[in-house]
Amino acid sequence: MATMRALRKTAAAPGAELVELDVPEPGEGEVLVRVHAASICGTDLHIFDWNEWAQGRIPRVPMTFGHEVAGTVEAVGPEVHHVQPGAFVAAETHIACGVCSTCRTGRAHICRNLRILGVDTDGAFADYVVVPAANAWIVGAGIAPDHASVMEPFGNAVHAAFGTEGGEDLLTNPVAVIGCGPIGLFAVAIARALGAWKVFAIEPNPDRRALAGKMGADLPIDPTAEDPVEVVLRETDGSGAEVVLEMSGNARAIDQGTRMLARGGRMSLLGLPDGPVTLDLNDQVIFKEARILGITGREMFRTWQQTTTLLSTGRVDVSPVITHRFPLERFEEAFATAASGHAAKVIVLPGG
Amino acid sequence: MATMRALRKTAAAPGAELVELDVPEPGEGEVLVRVHAASICGTDLHIFDWNEWAQGRIPRVPMTFGHEVAGTVEAVGPEVHHVQPGAFVAAETHIACGVCSTCRTGRAHICRNLRILGVDTDGAFADYVVVPAANAWIVGAGIAPDHASVMEPFGNAVHAAFGTEGGEDLLTNPVAVIGCGPIGLFAVAIARALGAWKVFAIEPNPDRRALAGKMGADLPIDPTAEDPVEVVLRETDGSGAEVVLEMSGNARAIDQGTRMLARGGRMSLLGLPDGPVTLDLNDQVIFKEARILGITGREMFRTWQQTTTLLSTGRVDVSPVITHRFPLERFEEAFATAASGHAAKVIVLPGG
Amino acid sequence: MATMRALRKTAAAPGAELVELDVPEPGEGEVLVRVHAASICGTDLHIFDWNEWAQGRIPRVPMTFGHEVAGTVEAVGPEVHHVQPGAFVAAETHIACGVCSTCRTGRAHICRNLRILGVDTDGAFADYVVVPAANAWIVGAGIAPDHASVMEPFGNAVHAAFGTEGGEDLLTNPVAVIGCGPIGLFAVAIARALGAWKVFAIEPNPDRRALAGKMGADLPIDPTAEDPVEVVLRETDGSGAEVVLEMSGNARAIDQGTRMLARGGRMSLLGLPDGPVTLDLNDQVIFKEARILGITGREMFRTWQQTTTLLSTGRVDVSPVITHRFPLERFEEAFATAASGHAAKVIVLPGG
Amino acid sequence: MATMRALRKTAAAPGAELVELDVPEPGEGEVLVRVHAASICGTDLHIFDWNEWAQGRIPRVPMTFGHEVAGTVEAVGPEVHHVQPGAFVAAETHIACGVCSTCRTGRAHICRNLRILGVDTDGAFADYVVVPAANAWIVGAGIAPDHASVMEPFGNAVHAAFGTEGGEDLLTNPVAVIGCGPIGLFAVAIARALGAWKVFAIEPNPDRRALAGKMGADLPIDPTAEDPVEVVLRETDGSGAEVVLEMSGNARAIDQGTRMLARGGRMSLLGLPDGPVTLDLNDQVIFKEARILGITGREMFRTWQQTTTLLSTGRVDVSPVITHRFPLERFEEAFATAASGHAAKVIVLPGG
Repeated sequence: MATMRALRKTAAAPGAELVELDVPEPGEGEVLVRVHAASICGTDLHIFDWNEWAQGRIPRVPMTFGHEVAGTVEAVGPEVHHVQPGAFVAAETHIACGVCSTCRTGRAHICRNLRILGVDTDGAFADYVVVPAANAWIVGAGIAPDHASVMEPFGNAVHAAFGTEGGEDLLTNPVAVIGCGPIGLFAVAIARALGAWKVFAIEPNPDRRALAGKMGADLPIDPTAEDPVEVVLRETDGSGAEVVLEMSGNARAIDQGTRMLARGGRMSLLGLPDGPVTLDLNDQVIFKEARILGITGREMFRTWQQTTTLLSTGRVDVSPVITHRFPLERFEEAFATAASGHAAKVIVLPGG
Repeated sequence: MATMRALRKTAAAPGAELVELDVPEPGEGEVLVRVHAASICGTDLHIFDWNEWAQGRIPRVPMTFGHEVAGTVEAVGPEVHHVQPGAFVAAETHIACGVCSTCRTGRAHICRNLRILGVDTDGAFADYVVVPAANAWIVGAGIAPDHASVMEPFGNAVHAAFGTEGGEDLLTNPVAVIGCGPIGLFAVAIARALGAWKVFAIEPNPDRRALAGKMGADLPIDPTAEDPVEVVLRETDGSGAEVVLEMSGNARAIDQGTRMLARGGRMSLLGLPDGPVTLDLNDQVIFKEARILGITGREMFRTWQQTTTLLSTGRVDVSPVITHRFPLERFEEAFATAASGHAAKVIVLPGG
Repeated sequence: MATMRALRKTAAAPGAELVELDVPEPGEGEVLVRVHAASICGTDLHIFDWNEWAQGRIPRVPMTFGHEVAGTVEAVGPEVHHVQPGAFVAAETHIACGVCSTCRTGRAHICRNLRILGVDTDGAFADYVVVPAANAWIVGAGIAPDHASVMEPFGNAVHAAFGTEGGEDLLTNPVAVIGCGPIGLFAVAIARALGAWKVFAIEPNPDRRALAGKMGADLPIDPTAEDPVEVVLRETDGSGAEVVLEMSGNARAIDQGTRMLARGGRMSLLGLPDGPVTLDLNDQVIFKEARILGITGREMFRTWQQTTTLLSTGRVDVSPVITHRFPLERFEEAFATAASGHAAKVIVLPGG
Repeated sequence: MATMRALRKTAAAPGAELVELDVPEPGEGEVLVRVHAASICGTDLHIFDWNEWAQGRIPRVPMTFGHEVAGTVEAVGPEVHHVQPGAFVAAETHIACGVCSTCRTGRAHICRNLRILGVDTDGAFADYVVVPAANAWIVGAGIAPDHASVMEPFGNAVHAAFGTEGGEDLLTNPVAVIGCGPIGLFAVAIARALGAWKVFAIEPNPDRRALAGKMGADLPIDPTAEDPVEVVLRETDGSGAEVVLEMSGNARAIDQGTRMLARGGRMSLLGLPDGPVTLDLNDQVIFKEARILGITGREMFRTWQQTTTLLSTGRVDVSPVITHRFPLERFEEAFATAASGHAAKVIVLPGG
């Protein structure tokens, strides 16, 4: 039986180990993917560091982590009818049950029995990964293989931008993006491509602020140097941003987001705060008739179609956001870089 | 010149005085209304008590308060073209500027320069009140004059029920109403009339809980006796309420509202909390993709059309909610009753 | 091997034959259902009569027809994970491919590779029928087994009433239903249950008009006796119906539907006309900003959840619409009755 | 009293006359505008030619026509509070009553008592025109005065592109524009600016097709040389266009529009056909679940805000569409050019 390398949490402790394992076999409804690229998500940093969240969330060790992945289908298990070996695919990482009430009404991404690739199952920082066939998205022409592994977080940004109501409010309206990690940077470019005017990018890290400019932000704002609420209000004649896309998870920034929001505006919350958040509901939500929308994952598979269109047609170019690439065996360096604050998206390439 | 009685805040202190004043003259675009009925709102209790909110919000004394009003147009000022003396009208109490960006896009109820009748202008606890002609809604047939003064708070409940997205999610879905003051009681009946299934009514006061049953609640819940989150989840097979209508303004209840909300559900916030509110955004909003909607006032005048339809056709009967009626001169008794917790809606009748 | 009775088109000619066949075996992803009740649809009449449409549409004979069906799962094939033998189910009759672009975006009912049970596959006028497991809807408590076979056409009416935009425009608005065959009759009751005001039912057949009254129509209209456009306009102060649900497929009625539609109104087209239809787009669609929505099938499975709620809670009672029941062997009588114009829904019961 | 020149229909016959008239005085709620530019609409050509439509529609002669206008407010009448002399304005040409049910629900552009500037009132091919203050849109910075007169037809295109449902379906989707007169040309650029992919422009006139390319069409199609339905289907992998914007009013093109529409797609109808139109509702609307939306005028004033944003920020440049400019006295030439088929938008400049 063939073997492969896999980056494993071998103990309930910080760090990870590159180990040799049997190549897994795809089960019913599953496909085996030879990994071309797997990018590092904030979640992966938590798992690597084994912080409090990871200790509470990861069901068991040893396990292989990593979930933002693209690669080639190598083999398919029984009950797989529509994906063939040889297909180049990216993975939707939300594994839905398909039969609960949300799944049965077209909202599988908020499945009541949701499992996550590389969290609840063995993941993609490896030569091979097994994913459900239903989660394999055929990438198609026009998207560089190196870019396909970021379709998953890019999809997060697409879903946050469109919101759960359709996204019509992006059109011709001022949009503020709070937090310019990779998903925020993607969101800046997406808002721009979808007809927003004007796009504010709020981010304390100067490298990321510079990247936001490259991605099309009309006005990058350093919240440590000026009050972002004041700037957004001033630049919109006091109206505020019609749409706020909250990507930071910072409690203070979330509060500021409600304050820079226009009357009748919409705020998508995607960034995960560390704890409960305190808000002025009266003045910033109720009297304003704000709409605050929780956003998670990607609509299956409307978001993937939108993602594919935006990337394959060149409406958005993700190149500036992919700042580093490492072969799998240099994973220590890859994680250190991703955690350094000087990188945006870091990709791990098992093929070197 | 004719005179009239008016209930005035004559000093920046608790209480109010019934005084004799000249009948006001309607100015440009205004109409003079002979008051048939004016109902007491929570806001009026704050003004009467001169609590902290009232001290900060009321621009000046002396002033006449009261804003939930219906009556007959007695005279019209210059520039009034479409309302005639003799018309029986209820008053929209949000006085919009008509020219700001929200007004110009059909959202006058969240006007940037909003003024409130009986707060920023002289109000309706009087024999006569002046209102802008644009705010006079002709009541039409099928609505008892005594009921017309509650069209304004009923409209609040209609607007909260429909939400800012249309209200389709009421249809066939479980709906939880938190807080059964008059607006909550109206909301129970409205949800029922608009095809909701099933309607939960959460309220500690047993009198109000009994009224909720009369208004059509399928399941009244006493949150002091059992955990309303548990009850709602249990009664919905663990799914939760697709729609939560928050009318209490109680911080703990708002938090509970997010917890009883279904995945992908919608929560309308209308009740005004005393201060900032702390929420678990991660589990109760983001991962659930909840939609939290601020609600204030009434859409001008779509809400009034809906209100008129619901009341004039008998789809909703507000009689059980109007628990007390007093002539204007017994205002002390009226306010004491309204504050007692044993009343729902208390109406003041200047005509006796 | 066990055998069963099946009503078959044995030749490309009018009529059908009750024959003895082997009980089929469910294939991959399929379930075998013992038929409790199968109701007769207009489509079945076309197939029985072998009219022009049937000649062009039915891929091959011999075949068993019938598709509105409820019964008990007797056996399941390989790759069936969530439906168990013994479950009482109704069948969604649109068999979707699951992988085309409309299927992948939550719109499987307009799948690009759609097949229909009892048209493209062997159907349900038989002791047993095989259906895809994904199409088996577990009926649950509160719906009489005899009523479950009409959940499929009832779902058509639900989907038409909600439309493709959500259905918020039903709430408190005048609704006209054109054509009161079974689906139109269901639509009358659904509009009523979902808060419509007032419901017009337009139908020349006096028996059906009487049934419309039983189902909750505020105003049944005989279009052979008076102009339905005039009546609807008169009864709505000249505004027209905010929603028109077109169930007749009659070209003249469709034109009338556009004329009775309010400015900004919505018309759901479900009835299938015999040929091309000529419309006054200028005055009845463009200047009015009408929305004309094509409606087919049922949303999978949002419509089924709505259907289940409306029926299981008693919000709608379909009893008056089910006018006749026949054992399978009296199929000639059943079809004659269904075609007579004196019946609404006719159910065939293989168990007698 | 000052006099002015005005282009008048002086008789119920073809042609028009430039005559000397008193400068009109603004009445209650009206403003007097000194005309900077007035552009020629198809409607104006009909009035000039005095075709059948004009004979039936124009209430009386003599009258001044022209309605696409921008200029400077010279004087204001009584009851005008928010527009000041000196303001540079464009005119919304739909004069709404403000009190009917559609006006009272934010849909004034489909007012039941709608009057049109330059059709029902004296228009703008003159040195001065009177318009209701409510119809005067302050143009603001960033829009060349010469471009402001086309904001009205540009707004038609904006409204058609957004549709009556919001316009979210433009985002990342293929869009077909049928008919590339000025409004169609605007629509091409608007769809492009709002994130559409890819934009088809269908137009037989080669000059206009070339302009469509300049405005950003991905694929101009000559319907006399190839079947536009085939081309759109081929270029979208058989799916069709998610959005069709029908600007031609050509019955055959409207039919083709339904055929090139994707399953579940949306078609905005803005072009006015000469007579009734015959459609295949079964296959092209019902089975597809197409949404056919009538579009007229502009939403007051959401469309104007969107128009202002698109033009003032340079998201769309209308320069290529404005092909000719003439002083008022050369009106004969201006109308001949506009009718020639070799022009797109022709502007008349009273100031020369």
